[in-house]
Amino acid sequence: MLALDYVNGLIPVVVQEEKTCEVLMVAYADAEAVQLTRDTGYAHFFSRSRKKIWKKGEESGHIQRVLRILVDCDEDCLLYVVQSKGPACHTGYRTCFYRTLDGKIIGDRVFDPAKVYANKDQ
Amino acid sequence: MLALDYVNGLIPVVVQEEKTCEVLMVAYADAEAVQLTRDTGYAHFFSRSRKKIWKKGEESGHIQRVLRILVDCDEDCLLYVVQSKGPACHTGYRTCFYRTLDGKIIGDRVFDPAKVYANKDQ
Repeated sequence: MLALDYVNGLIPVVVQEEKTCEVLMVAYADAEAVQLTRDTGYAHFFSRSRKKIWKKGEESGHIQRVLRILVDCDEDCLLYVVQSKGPACHTGYRTCFYRTLDGKIIGDRVFDPAKVYANKDQ
Repeated sequence: MLALDYVNGLIPVVVQEEKTCEVLMVAYADAEAVQLTRDTGYAHFFSRSRKKIWKKGEESGHIQRVLRILVDCDEDCLLYVVQSKGPACHTGYRTCFYRTLDGKIIGDRVFDPAKVYANKDQ
């Protein structure tokens, strides 16, 4: 296994949907989250705000089956290529990148977060 | 313009090729690099090692025309959707994500870095 360059124990992870090729989100993983992702085949990350490992979709059900984990040239960033069960963004959009720099919304909201999350912290 | 959440003055930027949808690279930008990208239409970043702004391709010629700049839900990550003139990775691969976690190379090397760069620092 390549030696990954964790900064303060974390490495950024880009998540891309395999079928649509959409970039869904960017989150951070620690070594344990990367290992859990390998071992289980489902995307795990480390929440910087909650300071703990989380499995994507553990509350919403919008889990991500990880088909490939790729490493960049500098070994300081990962790419999870996934099949996402449902949208990726906790705001209800399919991808977290649903706005332009000017704040214009270019994505479609596909679910109502209030109906999916008990709290909106995921 | 959305208020971006820079950490130590920097925000991570995912770069995606518009036509192939490939995730090409992840780099960091400061506010000036984002502004330069907007103003010029070409991808600019901030080099953490060289501590200065750089225009992607300034040495290699592998510039990236930025079609869209998207912002994620937390406003702490950007996505540049680009038309890349040539491969993105300084190692000669089309994308920086050319290896699996085990170090297996899955990409094709499309140029010889020694012939493109005077130094391999870009």
